[in-house]
Amino acid sequence: MNRSAPGGPPRYHHGDLRRALLTAARALLEERGPAALGLREIARRVGVSAPAAYHHFENLDAIAVALAEEGHAEMAERLDAALAAGAGLLAPMGEAYVAFARANPGLYRLMYGEGFHAASAGSEAVAALRRRTWATLTAGLAARVPAEAVPAAALFLWSLTHGLALLMIDGQTDAADPEAAIRAVLRLAGTGLAKPG
Amino acid sequence: MNRSAPGGPPRYHHGDLRRALLTAARALLEERGPAALGLREIARRVGVSAPAAYHHFENLDAIAVALAEEGHAEMAERLDAALAAGAGLLAPMGEAYVAFARANPGLYRLMYGEGFHAASAGSEAVAALRRRTWATLTAGLAARVPAEAVPAAALFLWSLTHGLALLMIDGQTDAADPEAAIRAVLRLAGTGLAKPG
Repeated sequence: MNRSAPGGPPRYHHGDLRRALLTAARALLEERGPAALGLREIARRVGVSAPAAYHHFENLDAIAVALAEEGHAEMAERLDAALAAGAGLLAPMGEAYVAFARANPGLYRLMYGEGFHAASAGSEAVAALRRRTWATLTAGLAARVPAEAVPAAALFLWSLTHGLALLMIDGQTDAADPEAAIRAVLRLAGTGLAKPG
Repeated sequence: MNRSAPGGPPRYHHGDLRRALLTAARALLEERGPAALGLREIARRVGVSAPAAYHHFENLDAIAVALAEEGHAEMAERLDAALAAGAGLLAPMGEAYVAFARANPGLYRLMYGEGFHAASAGSEAVAALRRRTWATLTAGLAARVPAEAVPAAALFLWSLTHGLALLMIDGQTDAADPEAAIRAVLRLAGTGLAKPG
């Protein structure tokens, strides 16, 4: 809770300041991308000093990892909900995946390490959340393909949705109707590009 | 040509210094990623002053764009060669694409804008080379799918290979045999994940 005194700096309960810093960092991430994340700018936006921010996060890497955790947790929730909509269906999982990335492009890039490869790779929480996403994907596919085919199928679907999400948030596609293009690509994940005849 | 005088700084013909700077930048990119690119460090590695480097490249963005152009040109050559190996075959094009990214992970990230989104998006040369890659992809697919299905098929195949390449160079997959995993994913691009029965 922000309890600003008139004319003074904002004052926060302990947990509230941590949350406020993460919210400001996430906004900065979406406005200007992972490369623009900076602890001073985040503190400035929240209206506290840099040392006050360092009280909650040892350094910028710690903020990046906390944001990556938040992103992976939200993604996992979306995929769980899509799985509940129908295990074995590609469209709900694929659409949920790409939609999350398109709604949170800066966060999505950060989740996959842009600008913070080492910090992100070193986080056990991030690794655990990625395993959860992978487990959801494989659970969905187990209803569709034989058990021995699940690992390749999961890598196939993850590659497809990861690549599609990035091409879209990077503005590499000029699809007039992005949602229709996503649906067409996911239909091809089901049918493949088999040669006719 | 490097014509160092004993004890003195290296001396370059005009075009040679430009090439030497790009070679050093590319090595730095592969060692430490796009975020670590810096004009001073590049100049230091070549053994010239920063102003000498600025004589060839206005700023770091200009180096990044030149490297992205180089990468897209090399990728286009590889895909053209794969297309010559058999239009309509997914494996040669897909394997060439992913192999290029795996052999040049820092460059590949840079080519897709990591750290230099604005500079890369503003380059007409990069845009032209991307259109060439896209044309190669669509030419290969035109031998395989009906004309009206080519755009979705090309976006499907590009998404798949882009995503797979990035997951692999980011160390997100734990495939014991990466080449076999790539082949399995590309086979699925042909067959799809059709539900049995």
